[in-house]
Formats: sequence, structure tokens, C-alpha cells
Amino acid sequence: MAKPQMPLPRHAVRATRTAGREMRSRLLDAASGLFKERGVSGVSIAEIATAAEAFPSQITYYFRSKEALFVEAACRDVLYAGSAAEEAAAGARTPGDYTRALVESVMRADALGFFIEALTLTRRRQDLAPLIERTIERLHAEGLRAYEGQIESHGWRSRLDPATSARRFWALALGIALEGHATGRASEELAAEMLRVLDAQADPNRRDQRLKLVAGASRNVSSDPETSS
Amino acid sequence: MAKPQMPLPRHAVRATRTAGREMRSRLLDAASGLFKERGVSGVSIAEIATAAEAFPSQITYYFRSKEALFVEAACRDVLYAGSAAEEAAAGARTPGDYTRALVESVMRADALGFFIEALTLTRRRQDLAPLIERTIERLHAEGLRAYEGQIESHGWRSRLDPATSARRFWALALGIALEGHATGRASEELAAEMLRVLDAQADPNRRDQRLKLVAGASRNVSSDPETSS
Repeated sequence: MAKPQMPLPRHAVRATRTAGREMRSRLLDAASGLFKERGVSGVSIAEIATAAEAFPSQITYYFRSKEALFVEAACRDVLYAGSAAEEAAAGARTPGDYTRALVESVMRADALGFFIEALTLTRRRQDLAPLIERTIERLHAEGLRAYEGQIESHGWRSRLDPATSARRFWALALGIALEGHATGRASEELAAEMLRVLDAQADPNRRDQRLKLVAGASRNVSSDPETSS
Repeated sequence: MAKPQMPLPRHAVRATRTAGREMRSRLLDAASGLFKERGVSGVSIAEIATAAEAFPSQITYYFRSKEALFVEAACRDVLYAGSAAEEAAAGARTPGDYTRALVESVMRADALGFFIEALTLTRRRQDLAPLIERTIERLHAEGLRAYEGQIESHGWRSRLDPATSARRFWALALGIALEGHATGRASEELAAEMLRVLDAQADPNRRDQRLKLVAGASRNVSSDPETSS
């Protein structure tokens, strides 16, 4: 599977790009399901290819290695999970309800454990760090955008720096899920632990007047080869 | 290497126990160094045995599997790191100095990344969860003890629930190190990020009068077969 060497007419280039995008997306979907079930070492490139009705060479063409595919699939999934959490929380009427909806949605998502495995893997595979870096930046940026949107539309007040809130939300979610998955906790317990830890930082006298800790996620998750590989 | 079947005189039992404890400790030391350098998949039982001047059968006798040895070595190391952080912070005169010393010490410790790998491994190896569970409980309990000791001896006041503070300290440390190691951050940057996130929760008008977030660690780390396997 080499790239075409000859210039193609514009409509053919578009068709090739679309087909490539569809194949990438199909490979990411198949990989995500298998990796979440069995982890990076429990899945082979051949199995992913079979599940996606593709050839193993297409995986190496689009992603170079199994580990790179693992990390990209995990990054895509956690951005989706962030987006889903933002949608789940959008209708909340109070800061407390908003935080609870965000936390419950994020902790329920199996994307979080998948992303934690990708982070752990990348510690020893620094060639894959740039995609992780962009994903974390995007989680923070989308969280900040959602936070500011909620503050503005509801007239909520916050004593917290919004950018720091989004960073803390994700660091805590990752830390609590890392501990909780290792000790076999259910997602409801993880959500309760995160709310417990977040709640303690609120001043009890002003609990309902302030947005305690908020983050959101991405609405528009793309896995174009140009932007995410 | 079967356990002795015949009852031994008391002094011989003591000698056997001491020798066993020393061998366990030697194996844990050798494993810790190799695992931190190369991860669980990069090290074989034979290499650990060679480094400890032991036989591979002694590793399986004392630990059953390479993964169990990995998790036990990581748990022992993170308890040591917690203890070292507590000692580093013990001389602090203000809550801010105390928090800073704790955070810098924990983030500098290579035990944190090692423990994160053990947590990630244990998600798919729930037979190893009980040791992780006891280690996290002990980190929280020792953190709480240190926190309360500081509050009492200095007369500091805290608006935070001390038990929740210790839990949040470790969840945040794990989450921030997980993200930071994946993106290649230096330990100074991780410490700065953790302090940034902790600092935002303080009320700026009372910043120096209050203990913001504190945890400590274990003084007395044991790796007796009776208590830690």
C-alpha cells in the first residue's frame, strides 16, 4: 500500500482522502473494542485487521505500530467521553448538579481506563507523546470553554481560576480512576469518591452559590490523518 | 524449596524466618531497580535472580509470579517514598512550606511512576488487588496521621476534612504524574503543576492561616511475608 505517486484529478484526490479517512476510522473502531477488552498486549495486529475487515498492512500504513494505534484509539475515545460528559451536564440548573452530571458521565466511560493505559504506555514510548500532549491540551481547552459557557449562561459565580479547574478535574479523574480500577471499584463508587474529594474544597456556607469544579469536553472529535497522527 | 515439614527448635525457626525475610528483601531490592528501569515486560525472572544472586525458583517460591513481585516491589517503594516525603516536610514552619516540601519530595520519587505502572497492571490482574488496596489504605492512614500531628504541634487550623485531604493528595499526585510522565515532564514541572492545582483551592485572603492539603507516609515499612504477600 504505497501512496499514489502520480498527481490525481482533484475529485479523485478527494475520493482517496475520504476512503482513507473511512478506513482509519474503521480501524480505530475495531481496535478500540478489542483493546478495551484485552489491553495492548492481549491483541494482535492480525486480530484488529480481521475485526475491521482490512489487511494488517493497512494498519501499519495508517498507524505505523500497534502501540501508536492503541494510543490514538484511546485519545479519540477519551475526547468522545469528554464530549458526552459535557452533553450530559448541559441541562443542569445548579453548579452542584452540573458537577455531579460531569463526574458520573466521565467515571462511567470505559474510555477513561483505556486512556490511563495509553498514558502508562507512553511513559516508556516517548515517540507517542505528542498525540497525548495534544489530547490533554484539548481536554483542558474544551473543559475551560464549557465551564465559561455555563458561568455566562447561568450567571454563576466562581472563586476558582477556570483554567486551573479544568486541569484539576482531569488530574483528579485520572488519579481516582487509576486507584479505583486497580482495586476493582464500580464506576458509582469512583464517582462518589471524586465528588467527596471535590466537595471538601467547597465552603459549606456558600455551597450552592459557587461553581466548585467543572470541566467539559470536545464536541468535534476528528481523527483526520492530518491532525491526529 | 518446600517449607520444612518437621517442627524445628525455636531458635532454628527464628533463623529460618530471618533468612527468608532477608532473601525476600534482597529479591525486592533487585527487582525494584530493574523494573523501574525497564518496566514489567522488559525484565525476566532470570535477570532478577541473577541481580539478587538467587535462584529463579526462589522468586516463584516467595512471590509466585513476576507480576506479583512487580506489584509488591512498587507498593513497598511508594510507602518508602511517602515516608521520605513526611520526613522532608517535618521541619516546615508554615502550612505552605509543609505542602511544598511534601509535593516536591513525592514528585521527585521514581517510586510514583513505578506504583502507577503497578496500578495499571492490577486493573487486569485482580488477584493482585488486595496488596494495592492495603497500600493505598496505608498511604491514606499515614497521611492522615502526619496531617493531624502537624495541625496539633503547630496549632494550625484547617477548614478541610483531614481524611479527605489525604485521599485527595494521593489521587492528585497520581493523576498529575500519570499525565506528566506520559508527556515527558520533569519532576519540577510536576511539582509546580500540583502546587498550582492545590493553590487554586485556597482562599487568597487566608492563604497562610490554613493548612491547604496535606498527606504524609509510612515510617515503618515492612515486607514480612506474613503481612505483605
